[in-house]
This record gives sequence, structure tokens and C-alpha cells, in this order.
Amino acid sequence: MKKILVIHGPNLSLLGKREPGIYGKQTLEKINKDLKDLAKKAKVSLTIMQSNHEGEIVDAIGNSRSSYDALIINPAAYTHTSVAIRDAIAAAAVKTIEVHLSNIYAREEFRQNSLVAPVCVGSISGFGAESYYLAFSAVLSLLKIQKN
Amino acid sequence: MKKILVIHGPNLSLLGKREPGIYGKQTLEKINKDLKDLAKKAKVSLTIMQSNHEGEIVDAIGNSRSSYDALIINPAAYTHTSVAIRDAIAAAAVKTIEVHLSNIYAREEFRQNSLVAPVCVGSISGFGAESYYLAFSAVLSLLKIQKN
Amino acid sequence: MKKILVIHGPNLSLLGKREPGIYGKQTLEKINKDLKDLAKKAKVSLTIMQSNHEGEIVDAIGNSRSSYDALIINPAAYTHTSVAIRDAIAAAAVKTIEVHLSNIYAREEFRQNSLVAPVCVGSISGFGAESYYLAFSAVLSLLKIQKN
Amino acid sequence: MKKILVIHGPNLSLLGKREPGIYGKQTLEKINKDLKDLAKKAKVSLTIMQSNHEGEIVDAIGNSRSSYDALIINPAAYTHTSVAIRDAIAAAAVKTIEVHLSNIYAREEFRQNSLVAPVCVGSISGFGAESYYLAFSAVLSLLKIQKN
Amino acid sequence: MKKILVIHGPNLSLLGKREPGIYGKQTLEKINKDLKDLAKKAKVSLTIMQSNHEGEIVDAIGNSRSSYDALIINPAAYTHTSVAIRDAIAAAAVKTIEVHLSNIYAREEFRQNSLVAPVCVGSISGFGAESYYLAFSAVLSLLKIQKN
Amino acid sequence: MKKILVIHGPNLSLLGKREPGIYGKQTLEKINKDLKDLAKKAKVSLTIMQSNHEGEIVDAIGNSRSSYDALIINPAAYTHTSVAIRDAIAAAAVKTIEVHLSNIYAREEFRQNSLVAPVCVGSISGFGAESYYLAFSAVLSLLKIQKN
Amino acid sequence: MKKILVIHGPNLSLLGKREPGIYGKQTLEKINKDLKDLAKKAKVSLTIMQSNHEGEIVDAIGNSRSSYDALIINPAAYTHTSVAIRDAIAAAAVKTIEVHLSNIYAREEFRQNSLVAPVCVGSISGFGAESYYLAFSAVLSLLKIQKN
Amino acid sequence: MKKILVIHGPNLSLLGKREPGIYGKQTLEKINKDLKDLAKKAKVSLTIMQSNHEGEIVDAIGNSRSSYDALIINPAAYTHTSVAIRDAIAAAAVKTIEVHLSNIYAREEFRQNSLVAPVCVGSISGFGAESYYLAFSAVLSLLKIQKN
Amino acid sequence: MKKILVIHGPNLSLLGKREPGIYGKQTLEKINKDLKDLAKKAKVSLTIMQSNHEGEIVDAIGNSRSSYDALIINPAAYTHTSVAIRDAIAAAAVKTIEVHLSNIYAREEFRQNSLVAPVCVGSISGFGAESYYLAFSAVLSLLKIQKN
Amino acid sequence: MKKILVIHGPNLSLLGKREPGIYGKQTLEKINKDLKDLAKKAKVSLTIMQSNHEGEIVDAIGNSRSSYDALIINPAAYTHTSVAIRDAIAAAAVKTIEVHLSNIYAREEFRQNSLVAPVCVGSISGFGAESYYLAFSAVLSLLKIQKN
Amino acid sequence: MKKILVIHGPNLSLLGKREPGIYGKQTLEKINKDLKDLAKKAKVSLTIMQSNHEGEIVDAIGNSRSSYDALIINPAAYTHTSVAIRDAIAAAAVKTIEVHLSNIYAREEFRQNSLVAPVCVGSISGFGAESYYLAFSAVLSLLKIQKN
Amino acid sequence: MKKILVIHGPNLSLLGKREPGIYGKQTLEKINKDLKDLAKKAKVSLTIMQSNHEGEIVDAIGNSRSSYDALIINPAAYTHTSVAIRDAIAAAAVKTIEVHLSNIYAREEFRQNSLVAPVCVGSISGFGAESYYLAFSAVLSLLKIQKN
Repeated sequence: MKKILVIHGPNLSLLGKREPGIYGKQTLEKINKDLKDLAKKAKVSLTIMQSNHEGEIVDAIGNSRSSYDALIINPAAYTHTSVAIRDAIAAAAVKTIEVHLSNIYAREEFRQNSLVAPVCVGSISGFGAESYYLAFSAVLSLLKIQKN
Repeated sequence: MKKILVIHGPNLSLLGKREPGIYGKQTLEKINKDLKDLAKKAKVSLTIMQSNHEGEIVDAIGNSRSSYDALIINPAAYTHTSVAIRDAIAAAAVKTIEVHLSNIYAREEFRQNSLVAPVCVGSISGFGAESYYLAFSAVLSLLKIQKN
Repeated sequence: MKKILVIHGPNLSLLGKREPGIYGKQTLEKINKDLKDLAKKAKVSLTIMQSNHEGEIVDAIGNSRSSYDALIINPAAYTHTSVAIRDAIAAAAVKTIEVHLSNIYAREEFRQNSLVAPVCVGSISGFGAESYYLAFSAVLSLLKIQKN
Repeated sequence: MKKILVIHGPNLSLLGKREPGIYGKQTLEKINKDLKDLAKKAKVSLTIMQSNHEGEIVDAIGNSRSSYDALIINPAAYTHTSVAIRDAIAAAAVKTIEVHLSNIYAREEFRQNSLVAPVCVGSISGFGAESYYLAFSAVLSLLKIQKN
Repeated sequence: MKKILVIHGPNLSLLGKREPGIYGKQTLEKINKDLKDLAKKAKVSLTIMQSNHEGEIVDAIGNSRSSYDALIINPAAYTHTSVAIRDAIAAAAVKTIEVHLSNIYAREEFRQNSLVAPVCVGSISGFGAESYYLAFSAVLSLLKIQKN
Repeated sequence: MKKILVIHGPNLSLLGKREPGIYGKQTLEKINKDLKDLAKKAKVSLTIMQSNHEGEIVDAIGNSRSSYDALIINPAAYTHTSVAIRDAIAAAAVKTIEVHLSNIYAREEFRQNSLVAPVCVGSISGFGAESYYLAFSAVLSLLKIQKN
Repeated sequence: MKKILVIHGPNLSLLGKREPGIYGKQTLEKINKDLKDLAKKAKVSLTIMQSNHEGEIVDAIGNSRSSYDALIINPAAYTHTSVAIRDAIAAAAVKTIEVHLSNIYAREEFRQNSLVAPVCVGSISGFGAESYYLAFSAVLSLLKIQKN
Repeated sequence: MKKILVIHGPNLSLLGKREPGIYGKQTLEKINKDLKDLAKKAKVSLTIMQSNHEGEIVDAIGNSRSSYDALIINPAAYTHTSVAIRDAIAAAAVKTIEVHLSNIYAREEFRQNSLVAPVCVGSISGFGAESYYLAFSAVLSLLKIQKN
Repeated sequence: MKKILVIHGPNLSLLGKREPGIYGKQTLEKINKDLKDLAKKAKVSLTIMQSNHEGEIVDAIGNSRSSYDALIINPAAYTHTSVAIRDAIAAAAVKTIEVHLSNIYAREEFRQNSLVAPVCVGSISGFGAESYYLAFSAVLSLLKIQKN
Repeated sequence: MKKILVIHGPNLSLLGKREPGIYGKQTLEKINKDLKDLAKKAKVSLTIMQSNHEGEIVDAIGNSRSSYDALIINPAAYTHTSVAIRDAIAAAAVKTIEVHLSNIYAREEFRQNSLVAPVCVGSISGFGAESYYLAFSAVLSLLKIQKN
Repeated sequence: MKKILVIHGPNLSLLGKREPGIYGKQTLEKINKDLKDLAKKAKVSLTIMQSNHEGEIVDAIGNSRSSYDALIINPAAYTHTSVAIRDAIAAAAVKTIEVHLSNIYAREEFRQNSLVAPVCVGSISGFGAESYYLAFSAVLSLLKIQKN
Repeated sequence: MKKILVIHGPNLSLLGKREPGIYGKQTLEKINKDLKDLAKKAKVSLTIMQSNHEGEIVDAIGNSRSSYDALIINPAAYTHTSVAIRDAIAAAAVKTIEVHLSNIYAREEFRQNSLVAPVCVGSISGFGAESYYLAFSAVLSLLKIQKN
């Protein structure tokens, strides 16, 4: 059974409450529940974590090396500043997909570069909660798991 | 019945032959066939075009205004240079999704900015042909069409 | 009898429908009709074209060399990206006036440089449809035609 | 009766004498006389000032707030350096048109940005003295005064 | 009774010992005592924390959302690098004031931009420990609490 | 008796009328009256001037050298362009505090650098009229005058 | 028999007429005739096209893939703006030589970068019509055809 | 007896496993053992820590102030992004040596600036595990301990 | 009899008092006296002015056109910000020499560009008061007046 | 009899041994022999030098002024750093052609600007040893010597 | 017996006399003597040269190709400007170590990039004369010579 | 008797012949003769050298340390590229004056920064041969030698 790790970056626990005009009204709990349902249907194991700490995210990615088959990560604010998360993904050598709720390319200039994107397989942004479900679907393709 | 337009930008007709290390081995014909199958299953109407001409793409987007419910576009090389395509998308006011076969953020610096992204709903890149199928799935969500 | 060519660049056929907050509510048909009335009154010959194709605009300017006395051009999106149109104007050696509906200097940064301006006699921007009529008036001065 | 203020910026009193290759041979006196004739014909009140002092120009714009219906300004050298004039125009909230004798976009790089343009309705440059007459004509349109 | 949170960023626990030429000789304990005295006098509740961990600061701001009426933050080194703290402040939607002991605009270039300032109400820098007392005074104004 | 000079820079006489969304509704007269009340209470002498002229402000600062104990300056638009005011402050060697009504770091990019800040003791911005009162309070601290 | 395609980019049909100070007095017809003579002598097949349309040039290069052994291209204005032509050359995988009539490195700054050069074998510029003949000679070397 | 602290930054626990082409095949355990052997021989006390958390590293450096005579730090990814670690080193005022396994100046551009270097005594990079041993040797010199 | 105008820019009246470490201990009165002595010896007429007002300096230069044979100007802070003074010098077409007391190229970066230098004959900086005397000597050469 | 000077810049004596993947396998001796053969055939006098010393190259160019009719130079590393060689070419006023073995525009960014190109007639790069032979052929054209 | 070449770049002959605050008090003679002692102990042959001439250094490196096993170079001022030395090192393909007496990353900005570093094995800076001894020790490791 | 060294940089031996529009018609021989006459009159010893070799100039400056009281240098092309000459001047600690024939600030952008200026006492440019005579006069002042 394939194992997938989902990492929600800083401030995402406030989802649904925080600036809904940009990030949508759905809560993180709802997204997590949806992802678990999709995992059950696809018969893959799914672990989810959220952290505001760059170090904890680096720890988690480092540990994923021998424990997970794929990573879905929304690095949020760390997208633009964390060389450490980038290095962790490169070091872990686990297939990783970058997810963003908002279309970061339509926002402030300092949000338009991603340090993380170059070490990911691919990137999905701008579809709100749907970004996560599309990423999950992309993971199934990468792991060559049949979709239903 | 909802109508979707798929636009393949310059040089994509060479897909499968051109630099397969970057763009994958799948041909454009295969991708188009797959998209049509997905459309049939989802009961939406699908039109596909490919053009190397910036002007033809601008024409097509301009005409989509009253004829289509959503646009999937892989602007390829024009991603980085065409203000005209950007303006056409903004003017057409049709929901548009940007697609890239390769992860443009892991390539040359001049490929890392997208003039088109800021006027799209969202963006999917790096999954090869799968990028298109994920975009199709995203369109169904945007148009609130039930997926099977 | 003096001959004037008016060139409308990409996406201008959508005028009146496209983002009226920026570009105004007047249609291109109305502007063209007004320009023809002004031409009739001033007893000059007027030709008008619109194209979304950079190459067609370059063709037209190249051909204007021996056929027209002055050019009024709204290069729209190509203002910022087309060295080819710039070269065509320099090569044609016909007196050319740059026109913009909106005040491009009050918009996004990438719209604030004009590749075309340095090879034009002058530039008029920000007055909506009135920009064209002022440009027409400026042409009459350049050609030393008496205004009524 | 509508009231219009014309402001000539630094060094313009030397017009006709100063670098005629760039600025033309017409003197400021001649331009002012022509503008007054146009004003008389259009039945609007016209006030004209010239100053080399940034502070005097800021004073004049600040005072124009309740006294004038429109402003025509050639900020000359201050175009590129004066945030104070920009703020004055924004604060005065009087319709303002930027005028340049030469095509500033065909000159040195430091003359190619205008701090003033973003707070003006529109901008006319490159037609020598004719730039002022076109600006006057544009003001009539903005104030919906019938032209003869 | 209004509640205020004061956050001291990284390395501030060394205050008084660390580079006194730049940061002054007062210790953090003294500043905290002074702030508590001011709070007692103004009859507001005051909580103080210091952390070298970006993640802990993001946690604290995230949790302040429903617990505090105002935030005083000296982000120290994170001022220049933390998009996460910026996002946390924007998400928490609590009135926030940025404080700096030294005049950051008179120091090294990389200390002259603040990622945090744009999401704060205002910013006070350069007065040593006094910067905090001015910020406290500013909070009273923002919360419309009468000063004594 | 200590003497303080307050300098209001260009366009501030329009306060309350000019863009109240950015600068607040309070007039300069009201701020000046409040500052005078504070001065009376603190038993310091207070002189206030406003000027749109960079040169007059430089004159005033130059003359303050032997006449004042502290300077409060809101350089407004000159913040970003005046090396002369910066040099005057450095030359006068009087303790100077920079004040801004709005949070200049949350505005256009060209307003985010201050030429004046590096030669001031400190800087207070974003609190509207309150910025001045906080600056006055900071001056009292700098001059070691007891606050009431 | 080896086959060579020569592509003349935008505005080159005006050669001899257009700015002879920069581009020389020779017409395109003369250059084409000379190239054909050289081809006859060298016993290679030569096809020549000129187009102002970026899309047509991309089409031609794409089609050259299985039809030609070498490409000589003067991309003219598209040298500096066309990622699409660059991608087409990379995709076609035909040996390509870049030609310029003028020394582009001695001209305006925006003409000093070439998007096309990095995907060509080599580049020849500054010799007027002779640039083409040298390129033809270089092609013979690349294709290991004996020169006479 | 002199006391030395060695700090390994983020992702270094993966050494030997992570991208051996760049970072070498030696594990962190082996390096630590070698450093301890060197310390025993030189009769100095050695403490070693590894952390992925910027905050923990800042804590450790802050605490080193009165506990250690020298610091050897490989800040890894934080080299390029952490002003907090830089400030901590400056504040601790303990002699610090920067170490890198790889030659950071031969890698991606964003790895070529070091925020930490300016506050260190010196810097050693590019020798793999040997970089640490050279740094240890440099520490002995700085502390004037005789080498064997 | 040849006539020379000397213009001292902003803050120079404080000379001798202001930052003597940078600008020297000599007062402006002493420099002016020395210049007058030199003028008397060389039998040229000398006028001297000092102003903190950019506009007054522009006025003076504009008026120098028909009244003076040469200009010596120390634009001080306006060196780096005044396009108006630059334009005035270019317009006046009087031989102008730029003078600086300090070596501006050894100071802050924003003092290292001179907007004025390109329109002057030459430039002398770094010799304190001696800079003026050398400039006076240079003027004599330019005007082909024999030196004693 | 026309006289041509060929200058090989720094490190070219290592040709054939040095990084053959970039510079080809041909030795400098072979290239020199080929050039001499071509010269003999064309009946021109040919002098060849190689130097690693910028100063020697400047000397040689300076002396070429009255001794040579044309210069072929491969400035190698000095292409990107030597203003002195550029000035020497401009001063010598001898027709000069720039040659590069590799396509410098496809290499590291710091190799993509040429200080020398703007003062040369033209430039040939990317054809290995053939670059020299093409340059020789170009010289014959420039000197209007008939090719065989 | 292994052979090592040490190259001291420009101005290093003044060591001990030149700016001792930056470069230390030790003379070059002393450093050379120490290096020779170390070489004798390690039983390797050591050659030392100093030159102010970029060309001589390039010559020496070029000749080292078949004569030396390792290179220790302090390129001093040429670190930042010499592409020729960089190319020479790359061409020589001898293991090279870069040495700096001072910590170049704590000095002026133009000293913070090294053109030479990317082609060296590693780099040691900031330890004064000790930098050379550490480099010598590093060479022994690279050549797998046992240290005593 | 005071001793002065004059250094003429690269290409200056061509003076009078080379681009007289920029550098004037006077030969270097004439300038040298004039300088020697001035030296004789002022009773100072004068040595003059010219070199195209950066290394020779560095040698000469290094040797001037104990042999000369002042240096006059026209670094010509090396002004903009030579950190080695800058370091030599700083190391020699002899009073140095920078001289330029032309006004380098009115020329190409790459000639507008001087690496040498920040370590000189002062700088004189734009007066042709007169620049040298003014520099000689400045030297007399610096050495407190009475002028005649």
C-alpha cells in the first residue's frame, strides 16, 4: 500500500477565517477530511500535518525519505524564503508536488518566485481547495495507481 | 451543454519528437484523443486548436468570448513574451487555465515568469500530458460539472 | 490628396465590450466612423485596418512606405513587446503617431515602456476615443493641412 | 465660464533660444499668445504661469483646487524628479493633462520615466508647440465644451 | 479590559549585553517591567513573550486572533526575511505596531526593507527602549483608551 | 526653556481635504493646535512652519542649528527625493525625528525609501495625526523633559 | 544532394531602401541571387523565404526538421523577442547559423541580447550582405562539403 | 580547558545519503567522531549539535556567549536566508568559523551570497569533510593552542 | 573684461561649521574672498551667489546666458537629484565647471552619480577649498586668459 | 601587398588540450598553419601572435596603426573585461574582426557581453577553428581582395 | 615527490607594510619561509612566485599543467576582475585552492564576488597568514599525503 | 626636494593621433614637456612613465611608496576595471590625484564609474591637457609648495 504525506505550511490552520477573499471559505479540517476520503477510495495511506515551524517541516521531509512514496506540500509563506525546505525536498528524493490555494502569480511581486518549485515534479495553484484534490489525483498518476 | 476550448501554442505539434527529455514522449494526437474521451464521458463539448501564430491565438481567444464556457491554454513559448495573449484572456472574460507540460520553474530563467498566469484562474505545470487531464478536471470543478 | 493609414492593434475589435473601466464604452466601429467623418471634412483619404497579428501590422507598415503620408497607430499589447513593429516604422520613414486609449503610465509596470514611442513623432495617451481624434488633428498639423 | 490653468515648468522661458534641435524654434511668448487666442475662441478663461521653482509650482497646483476646472502642465525637468508635484496634482483633484514639447521616450533613459503621468488624465508629447494646442483641445473635450 | 500582546523577536534576550553601541544598554527585563507599569496605570492587560523561533512567533500571532486587542512586535532579524510572520499578522487581523530599537534605515542595506511594515498600522524605530513606550502609547490611542 | 521646531513639508496644508482615505480627516490647523497645547503643558517653546519649497525647508533647518534643541519634520514628498534636506539635517546637528501620517512602507514602491531617515534619530509613521503627538513625546524623552 | 533553407526575418524585404546607413545598400533580391549562385557552384539545393510573421517562421523551422540539412536565419527584430523561434530551432534539431547584417553589439542596448544565439551552432554579424555569404561558407564546412 | 561548539545546520543529518555527488559520501556520524578524536588529541572540550530549526540554532549561539571559546558552524541552507543567525553570532561575540562541505561559489546563484560570512572570522568551503578538520585546525590557531 | 559667475549650492553657507571632517574647516566667506583676490589679479569680473533653492539656481543659470562667459558651480546635494539644473546648464550654453569640496566618489553610493557632470566641460573634486581655486584656474584656460 | 595581423588572446596556447568539449580538438599550431596557407593563396602578408598579457595585446594593436591593413582578434577572456583592448582598437583605427571558437552566447552569463564587439566591424563565433577561416575570408572582402 | 606551486597575486609583496589593519603584520617573506618549512616536513616540493602582472600569472598557471600536482593561489585584486586567470585554472586542470588573508565577504561589495572560486576545489579566507597554512594542509589531504 | 611621479595609462602614447574629437590634438610628448617645465619652475623632481600594462603600473605604484611624495595618474581604460591599481594606490599610501583628459561622465555608461577615485585625494577631468597642469598645481598645494 502506497503512502502519501501531506504538509500544510504556516498560517494554514486559520483557513476559512483568514482573508477569505484570497484563500476561500473552506476550512483546513474540511480539506483534510476530503483528502482522507479520496485516499480511502484510492486505497493509499495518507498522513497529514500542519506546522508554522520551518524546522518541523524540514524534519518531516527529511524523515519521509524512507517512509513515504510521495509528498504533497503547500509551503505557503515559506515558498518564497526557505532554502532549507528546498534542500530537504532535494535530499529526501521523494516525488513532491507543490500546491497553492491562490494563484501566486497574480499577487504581490515577492510572492511570484518559488524556491521550492524547481525541486518538485510539478506545481498546481489557484484553484482553492480543489488544488489539493488535483494534486492528489496527480500523485495517483505519478505512482501509477488506477483512478476511479 | 458546456463548451470548452483547448489551445495548444507554438511548436507543440512536434510533441513526442521534440526534446523528449523535457517534454515527454506522448504525441499531441494522443493527448487530444484522451481529452476528447474525457469530454465525452463528462458530456461537455470540446474544441481543440494548435497554432504557431500569436495572432491566431489572440483571434481564437477573442472569439471565445460568447462561444465557450472555459479555456485551457498551453501558451508554450508565448507564455513569456505575449502581452497580446494576456490582454485577450483578460478581455474575453472566460475562465482560463494555464497548462505546461514541463515544470517551467526548473528551467532557464527567462522561462520562469509567465505573463499569462496573472489573468488565469490557476496554473498546472510539470506533469507532462497529465497536466492537461488535471486541467480538464479543474475545468469541470469550475463549471460545477459532476465528475465521474 | 493626402493619404492617412490608421492601424488598430490586437484585441481592439473587442472595444466597448472589453474591460470598459479601463478602455471606455465606445466601440471601434464608432471611432472609425468618427475618424472617417473628420477625414471627409479635412479632405484627406483615410484607410483603417485592425489586426491581432504582429506580422500583418508589420506588412501594412512596410507597404505604407510609398502609399501613405502619415500613420496613426495604436499598437496595444505590441507596444511593449514588438521590436518588429518598431523597425517597420523606422524603415517605412512615414510620419507616425502613437495612440493609446488608456494612460499606460498609470497601469502595470510592464505597460510603462513603449518600444514604439522612440521612432514616432509623438505620442498621445489617456483620453479614450478622444486620443484618436487628437492624433488625427496632430496629423493635419504635421501635413500642414488647414483645420476647420 | 470654465477656467483653465497652464503651468510651464523650469527652463521653458528660454524656449526658442535653448537647443532648438530638440525643443523647436517657437518662443514661449508665441505659444502663450496662441493659447490665449484659442481660449478666447472657446470662451474659456485662461491663466498662464512659468516657474523654475518646484515649490511655486506645488503652490499653484494646490491653490488651483477650488479655482480651476482643468490644468495643462509641462513639468519639464521636474517630470522625472518631483514627487511633490505628483502629490500636488493628486491632492488638487483637478483634471490635469501632461504636455511635452519633445518626445521624451526618444531621449536619454533618465527622461523616460514620468512621475507625473500616473496622476494625469492623459499625456501628449513630441509635437513641439502643437503639443500645447492638442492639450487645449483635449481639455475642451474633458470639460464637454463644444469645439469650433 | 483590553488585552495587549508584546512579542520580542530573535536575539532580544541578549539586550544590554549585545552590541550596546547599536541597541542601547537597557536590558529586556527592564523594558518589560516598564511596560507592565504602564499597562497597570492604563488598566490594560499585558502579555509578553520572547522567542528566537519564527514558528513560535507565527503560532503566537495566529492564536492572538480572538484573544488580544492589539499587538506590539519587534520582529528583529525576522523583519527582513519572514513572509510567514507577515502573513500571520495579516491573517490575525489584530491591530499591530512594529517597533525597532535602532533606526533600521541608517544601517546595512539588507536591514532597510521591512516585510512586516506593510501589514502593520504603523511603525516606530530608532528611540531605543523608548520605541516600546511610544508604541504602547500609540496602542492606547488606537484602542481609544484615555492616557494619563 | 527648550525650543522645538516643527516642519510640515509640501502639500500638507491641504490635509483633511486631500485624499482622506490615505491621510485622515484631521486638518493641519487642528494638529498644530494640539501640538501647541502639548508644548504648553510640557513647558517647551514650539515653532511651526509649512512649506512647499525644498529650499525654504533647507533654509529653516540650516538656521535651526543654534536656535532649536530638536526638530520634528514630516518631509512628505521630499522624503524620497531631497538629498538637500538630508544634508541640511546632518549639517544642523540638531536632534531630528521623522514623522509620516501614513505608513509609507505600505504604499507605492517609490515611497518606500527615505533619504531623510538615516540622518534622523528615529522615525514614526502610520498613525495619522497621532504620529506627530508620539514624535512630540519622543522629543521630550530625548531632551530628558519629564512627561506629565 | 544537401538541402539548405535560408530564412529572412521581418522588414528585410525593405533592404537597400531601409536605413542604408545601418543596413547597407544591397537589396534582398541581390543577396538571394548571390546565394543561389553560390549554391549552384557548391551543388547544394537552396530554398529561400522571407516573412514578417513570427508564426510563419516558426512553421517553416518546424517543417524543416525532416526536409533540410542546415538553416541560415536572420531573425532580425525577432532575435530579441521570440522565444517561439528559439524553441522551434531547438525542436527542429537542424544545424542553424544566425546571421546579422549589422553589428548588433554596437547598437541600442535592447538589440544586444539574442534569444536565438544559444540554440545556434554559431553566429556571424556586422559584414552586411557578406554576413550571408560567410554563413553559407560555414554551412558547407558544417556539412563537410568541399568548397571551391 | 578551552571549549568549542560545533553546529551542523539543516538537512546535514542526511549526509552521506543526500546527493553524494555534491556533498560527499561521508556520514555526519563519521565527521563527528573524527572531530572528537581531534579534540581529544588537542585537549579541548568539544560539543556538537545538529538542528533543522533556525530558532534552535539561534538559541544555541546565544547561549554560547559565556560558555564557549569558539564556534564552528555549517549553516547550510540558512547561510543564504538567516539574518537571525547572523545577528546571533554578532551578539554572542564568540570567535566563529563558517564551514561548507561544497564550494558554494560553484553552485546556483542564490547559494553564492552568505549572510553569515561577514560576522565570522573566516570561512572554509569546498573540501567535503576536510572542511571541518581545517576549521578545527584554524580554531586551534585562533585560540593559540599548540597543534600536534 | 570677461565675466564669471560662481554658484554655491545648498547648505554651503554652513561651511566650516558643518561636518568639518568631510568638508574642511574653511568658511565660505574665506573661499569667496580668495576667489575675489584671484579675479582681481586675473582682471576678470566675478559674481558670487549661494542658494538653498533649486529654482533660484536655475534662474541664475538661465540669466547667465547673455551675461557671463563662464560658470563655476558646486551643486552640492542637487548634483545627484536636479535634472532642472542640468537642463539649465545645457540651455544656457555657457562654459561650466563642476566643483566639489569632497571626493564624492569616496562617499555614499547615492552621491556617486552626477546628473550635472555630463553637461559641464569638466569636473574637479576632493581638494577642499583648493577645488575652487583650481576651477578658477581652469576657467582662465578655457577663456584663454593668461595666468600669472 | 596587404598586411594582416592575427592576435590570439590568453590561454589559447593550450588549445586542443584545454577543455576540448568546449574549444575543440584542433591545436593553435594547426590553425596558424592553415591561416598561413590561406594567406599565401590570397597573396597577403600574415603575422600571428599569442599573448596572455593584456598589455602586450594593447601594445600590438597600438603598433598596428600604421603597419597593418586589418586585424583578426580572438580576445578570449579579455573579451569580457578589457576596456584597454577596446580603446586600443578604437585608437588604432584598423579594420578589426572579432573571432570566438565557442558560441559565447550559449555559455555563462558573464561571457555573454563583449566589450570589444562594439568597436569591431563584425563578429564570428561558434564554429571552432572554422571561425578563424571565415574571419580571414571576411577580411579579404573588407580589403576587396579577390577570393579564389 | 609531489610538486606544489604557490602564487601570490598583485600588491602582496607589500604585505606587513600595507594596511596592516586589514592584512595583518606578517611579511610575505615570513609566510614563504613557513610554507617552505611545512613543505620540507611533508616531503613535497614547493615553488613560490609573486607577480603584479595578470599575464604572468596566467603564464604560470598555463605552464603548471604538466609540472605541478596542486596550486595554491591568492589572486588578490584579480579575484574580482580576471576571467583570464579563471580560464587558465580551468584549462590547467590542476587541483587549485583559493586563499585570502582577509575575510573578503566582510569588505566592500565589489570584493564579495570571486570569479576564481567556481573553478577551484575550495576556498579559505579570513585567517591572515594562517589561511596559507590551512591551504597547505588541505593540499596534503587532496594529494592524500599523510600529515604529521 | 619633493618628488612626483606621473603615470600615463594604456593607449595614451597615441595621444594627438587617437580620436582627437574626444582626446584633443596635443601629443603626450608636449604634455610631458610642459609638466617638466612646470616642475623645474616649482623646483620639484618629476618622473614620468607610460605603460599599457596593468602589472607595470601596479609595480610602479608599489615602488613609489618610499620614493615619491605624490602621484599623478591617468589610469585611462584601467580606471574602470583595475582593482589591482586601486589596491596599489591604497597600499602605497602616497597622495594620489586622478586625471582624465575627457569628461568621463559625459561618455559611455561603462566609463562612468571609477574604481580608482575612492582611494585618491581628488579627481580632475574634462580639460584635455590642462587637466594635467591643474593636477600638478593641486599637488603643489597638497605638498604645501608655494606656487609662482
